[in-house]
Amino acid sequence: MKALLTIAYDGTNYHGWQRQKGDPVPTVEQMLNEACFQIFRREVEIIGASRTDRGVHAMGQRAALDITGVSIPVDRLPAAINSKLPEDIAVRAAIEAADSFHPRFDCVKKTYEYRILNDSFRNPLLRNYTEFVYRPLSVDAMRGAAKAFVGRHDFKAFCAAGNSSSTTIRNIFEMSVKKEGNIIVISVTGDGFLYNMIRIIAGTLIDAGLGKTKPEDIADIIASRDRTRAGKTAGASGLMLKEIFY
Amino acid sequence: MKALLTIAYDGTNYHGWQRQKGDPVPTVEQMLNEACFQIFRREVEIIGASRTDRGVHAMGQRAALDITGVSIPVDRLPAAINSKLPEDIAVRAAIEAADSFHPRFDCVKKTYEYRILNDSFRNPLLRNYTEFVYRPLSVDAMRGAAKAFVGRHDFKAFCAAGNSSSTTIRNIFEMSVKKEGNIIVISVTGDGFLYNMIRIIAGTLIDAGLGKTKPEDIADIIASRDRTRAGKTAGASGLMLKEIFY
Repeated sequence: MKALLTIAYDGTNYHGWQRQKGDPVPTVEQMLNEACFQIFRREVEIIGASRTDRGVHAMGQRAALDITGVSIPVDRLPAAINSKLPEDIAVRAAIEAADSFHPRFDCVKKTYEYRILNDSFRNPLLRNYTEFVYRPLSVDAMRGAAKAFVGRHDFKAFCAAGNSSSTTIRNIFEMSVKKEGNIIVISVTGDGFLYNMIRIIAGTLIDAGLGKTKPEDIADIIASRDRTRAGKTAGASGLMLKEIFY
Repeated sequence: MKALLTIAYDGTNYHGWQRQKGDPVPTVEQMLNEACFQIFRREVEIIGASRTDRGVHAMGQRAALDITGVSIPVDRLPAAINSKLPEDIAVRAAIEAADSFHPRFDCVKKTYEYRILNDSFRNPLLRNYTEFVYRPLSVDAMRGAAKAFVGRHDFKAFCAAGNSSSTTIRNIFEMSVKKEGNIIVISVTGDGFLYNMIRIIAGTLIDAGLGKTKPEDIADIIASRDRTRAGKTAGASGLMLKEIFY
């Protein structure tokens, strides 16, 4: 039997979800591995649904692990594992899953949020959780640009070097741009995302908000499949994995 | 001539605003002193309006400093000082003030906010900015209790040992309890606060929200002047200095 965990973390102090070869800085996966090792008293393979990058946060990461022979009831797993985790990682829920379940392959869609603090001064309390833009952004222009991303597209122009996917075609089901006080929240739901895809989309929406890129040009930029025509890769701190759907 | 600065900071990594004797951990005041020393190329005495404790945050701390002979225009001071400050401290504004101005003695009122995350699981992204309470809190009971604090009272029961004020009488002008999603925000405006006063008030309101203390007993607890009858001192991370009025 497997357990499917829902995990929240502050990515500020981690080198992303998954360990890189030869990287001495801890990853979220490693902290979970060590916590489970203390609880189960054996090695545990934890398979995450999404490989979030260094500095990226999560409220709804999912991960599966084999719990065959584990005596703790599944609904008690969060409290048990949390007791061995640092304060910047928390297991929020655990449910049973079939042995055949795979958190990455069985995922049907994911929602990420990207937060921009648009203010004349940076806010120390939000520095790790937002991208800071001091010039005023037009939310209307950002919304106009966002519309062009929705649908099935080849997102090669929005993919960083180092992407290992076999195809650069992805479906974006929904995209919204909301303003909450001086924070702009971009929400993107899709069947999967290329390496740095949402951060490049966010950088492109910032350009649209600043008037540097016209909303009506986004379709052309997507069609070009040319990374140099899209915006900069916006910072990791603004990005949060919100939810994964099965 | 003096400048009056408005300062925001994440207090997580500092031992409060003001340096304690023999304490090797940096304070916010010390970081500002060092930044100003680099800009002005001379020692600068910075007088803060409020001595926030270790781990307490600010969006509206105020501080005054002598800028006689400084060639930078006052409205350029924030950008200049910020260029020498770490990311968790930011000068948000600077205005001119008379030589006779004193940020502490001239203050007419201050507003602090105290944030409680009331949820079944802790949230790693909010761990440094909220107090976590997992049992459900009654916001109505907290509001009822809050009313009893408003007015001129002897707050000796809400004052930690080590308070150096000559009197324990203070005026609370306004107090509110609001719920924003799963976060409860207590806002307190008064002419001044005793050592740990707002954190003890927050701890007492948490007791009221849990049903441990009745709202109608608060007046008696205040009148008792007995620290042991009030609630626990709630954690520093939930507290934020919001605004100081002159």
